[in-house]
Amino acid sequence: MAKELKDLTKRSVDYSRWYNELVVKADLAEQSDVRGCMVIKPYGYAIWETIQRELDLRFKMTGVQNAYFPLLIPKNYLSREADHVEGFAKECAVVTHYRLKTNPDGDGVVVDPAAKLEEELIIRPTSETIIWNTYKNWIHSWRDLPILCNQWCNVMRWEMRTRLFLRTAEFLWQEGHTAHATREEAEARAKQMLDVYADFAKDILAIPVVRGVKSETERFAGALDTYTIEAMMQDGKALQSGTSHFLGQNFGKAFDVKFVNKENKEEYAWATSWGVSTRLMGALIMTHSDDNGLVLPPHVAPIQVVIVPIMKTGEQEKFDAVLGELAKKLIAKGIRVKYDNADNKRPGFKFADYELKGVPVRIVMGGRDLENGTCEIMRRDTLEKETVEFAGIEDKIPALLEEIQQNIYAKAKTHLDENIFECTNYEEFKERVKDGGFFLCPWDGTEETEAQIKAETQATIRCVPYGVSQENLGVDMVSGKPAVARVVIARSY
Amino acid sequence: MAKELKDLTKRSVDYSRWYNELVVKADLAEQSDVRGCMVIKPYGYAIWETIQRELDLRFKMTGVQNAYFPLLIPKNYLSREADHVEGFAKECAVVTHYRLKTNPDGDGVVVDPAAKLEEELIIRPTSETIIWNTYKNWIHSWRDLPILCNQWCNVMRWEMRTRLFLRTAEFLWQEGHTAHATREEAEARAKQMLDVYADFAKDILAIPVVRGVKSETERFAGALDTYTIEAMMQDGKALQSGTSHFLGQNFGKAFDVKFVNKENKEEYAWATSWGVSTRLMGALIMTHSDDNGLVLPPHVAPIQVVIVPIMKTGEQEKFDAVLGELAKKLIAKGIRVKYDNADNKRPGFKFADYELKGVPVRIVMGGRDLENGTCEIMRRDTLEKETVEFAGIEDKIPALLEEIQQNIYAKAKTHLDENIFECTNYEEFKERVKDGGFFLCPWDGTEETEAQIKAETQATIRCVPYGVSQENLGVDMVSGKPAVARVVIARSY
Repeated sequence: MAKELKDLTKRSVDYSRWYNELVVKADLAEQSDVRGCMVIKPYGYAIWETIQRELDLRFKMTGVQNAYFPLLIPKNYLSREADHVEGFAKECAVVTHYRLKTNPDGDGVVVDPAAKLEEELIIRPTSETIIWNTYKNWIHSWRDLPILCNQWCNVMRWEMRTRLFLRTAEFLWQEGHTAHATREEAEARAKQMLDVYADFAKDILAIPVVRGVKSETERFAGALDTYTIEAMMQDGKALQSGTSHFLGQNFGKAFDVKFVNKENKEEYAWATSWGVSTRLMGALIMTHSDDNGLVLPPHVAPIQVVIVPIMKTGEQEKFDAVLGELAKKLIAKGIRVKYDNADNKRPGFKFADYELKGVPVRIVMGGRDLENGTCEIMRRDTLEKETVEFAGIEDKIPALLEEIQQNIYAKAKTHLDENIFECTNYEEFKERVKDGGFFLCPWDGTEETEAQIKAETQATIRCVPYGVSQENLGVDMVSGKPAVARVVIARSY
Repeated sequence: MAKELKDLTKRSVDYSRWYNELVVKADLAEQSDVRGCMVIKPYGYAIWETIQRELDLRFKMTGVQNAYFPLLIPKNYLSREADHVEGFAKECAVVTHYRLKTNPDGDGVVVDPAAKLEEELIIRPTSETIIWNTYKNWIHSWRDLPILCNQWCNVMRWEMRTRLFLRTAEFLWQEGHTAHATREEAEARAKQMLDVYADFAKDILAIPVVRGVKSETERFAGALDTYTIEAMMQDGKALQSGTSHFLGQNFGKAFDVKFVNKENKEEYAWATSWGVSTRLMGALIMTHSDDNGLVLPPHVAPIQVVIVPIMKTGEQEKFDAVLGELAKKLIAKGIRVKYDNADNKRPGFKFADYELKGVPVRIVMGGRDLENGTCEIMRRDTLEKETVEFAGIEDKIPALLEEIQQNIYAKAKTHLDENIFECTNYEEFKERVKDGGFFLCPWDGTEETEAQIKAETQATIRCVPYGVSQENLGVDMVSGKPAVARVVIARSY
């Protein structure tokens, strides 16, 4: 483990390689033998479980309920909504048969040609179609609305170039799908869920984000508006971390979901959908971690405090009595603790391993500490060590964890703030965007300009950000035509 | 809703129809347009979430960690283990292509023939193969063992005849997969997890079960031993509710998973797998519910207590003050409460609806109750009503919920105990098995006898039960040959 840590590429040498190596070395995930599909290992999955738990709580507080809809979608559903099929049909896994049989000509099994489906089924790339086909039977009157469902599930998009967590063929996510009686209510819900995502990113993942609305080109296939949270990685690139879509009546119309409104008239239902995925794991890793490994905010860390004794043969009982007791006290405070008294690994190995895994607080006690009634505390975010009095230490840990959480957020926030630049000169933009950062630029609102920027710089319009003045826009930095919005442009993951 | 309840078929008229109707009317699940795939509705999913939470806790207490493995499995993996392929290849969904394209000859989309996979992929019917292919890279030394992973996920088996929860093409489940250094440890783990299931079924679902080991014919494809819990439905049929498999070294050998043991010799790893699925929902419904609808044990009920005011126009504030306060007090005690003060439904409708949905305790307060400081409590298990003093009622609810939980279990336990019969006469068996029940019979251990019983009576050997004497076996009731075991025979779901 110590060796593995030493092998971790430094961020300054190759940020991308650093990320790929870290995901594997920290035991978060690995590639499977199935192209583009990952195995999420227990340590990585434990982080995902915390993400799920915290988000689920927040969804339910807004009245959302969980449900489950089929994995497979009849092919024809995809083509019901014109934009939707364009966006998703090109990258989906298709089920054509329902049986294998013994190979008559040799070893193994082959597809049984007699078991061909009449209509092919698609593994869901997203579930608007199957869910709205279901909602059709649930919605008749305004009294049946709103419907606020979410599902935690796997989805599949046949990506050609994949990277662990950031872009995989199969990924885990949640997808919320709501139906409403009015346009206003649906739009408000779409915005509300974006705020839930942004608050969660800040409070739990310690990731500051820019909220905004996507340009038409970058919208979800089938949406009238896509709201987004954009996080900034340490290399200055944007990572879209969550989206919420106002779908208008597009799916209501495509699946004929009508209801009788309060005025006793038939109307199509209004829709939203919103999701975050295991991509958040990538955002979490790339926002905070360093050359020693992961840095996990305490609120999401599977292990918040690790306690390691440095003991000689025969001393285990003595240490267990003292440190086991501390572990119990911390657990009683709701802290996730690991007391690592394993004697088949040296303390140095353990230290490197827990650093690599981003455990926020390490408490170490050696023989002299035990005599003196002291211990050493190391915090992972700053790597600072301090020798402190052991008695009553359990009372100081909760505040320390909060301090670390805030510090990690503050660091990320400073990085974000310091790397948002106003820019009105395209030549300057082209030069500076190579080094990363979010550029606030006036845009003429045309797809042509957007396409030109992308072709020439690989940067895209991330969003029209909230909370940024949209007055005195001046002219588009590329076309020189009057600008219609001040947008965030950046390279992205 | 009151009308729907009236329409519920009585169990005595048609038990099977009663079940099918109840699942839909109680808003638990419904068929989707995708053959054999169900939609689990919010109320049904809330029960599943409690099942997940309670099981997950119990798994983790035994050292199990969650992880996630790919949905898709390369076709050739299935044929690596000879028995396994026989058991699963015949009923699986096969992915052959990864893209659709616009139909050149008309509307919609068609499969793009250019996007054919080199090797077909199977949607997991169970994950032993892909997981053991992964474990190969995780296991080198005895120090890497045991590995104790579980995943919560969807799986797919192409069933021809499906019923909601009991047998669906796609279902949700958990599958645990462990790897061990010794045969003894693996066998102990397989048995341990069966006990976890049995205790969970008893303590949370209030379902008494018979534990035992399967005959060779009924074993999991690839297992050396399959342990099972068998529950008895109200019609006396068995429902296999959870299984745990000792897989020996079959998958270790099939996927070449070797490790260096403590004696420094190479050895194949020993395996177990174990799972329960949304089938448990079917067991829960059929064990306890009655002609009025669901009966849910409090430990698994999404709503444990519902509070309904009977109020006149203008009285809402007055009732909200009193009953809203009670709801808060109960929530503070960790009870799942719903205060239903909606004024667009009549109390009678609400009563019928909550009865149908199996809410364990209903508290009703009318105008006179409010004046007198009383309220009416109804318990769903016995349908008994009682008018009690309102003050301090919150202190009595936890004990009442426990009493209901115990009573529901006791009723099911009595039913099970009263319907287990010793039987040594095949003619008598053939006659009596039609009416349901578990029959304890001496068996000669041959597949022929097993097959004959199944062909002539539709009953199968459920298991060799724990805790039943295996002495003085006498002769097989069918063949007259010496018996080798006393087994449970029953018709089953």
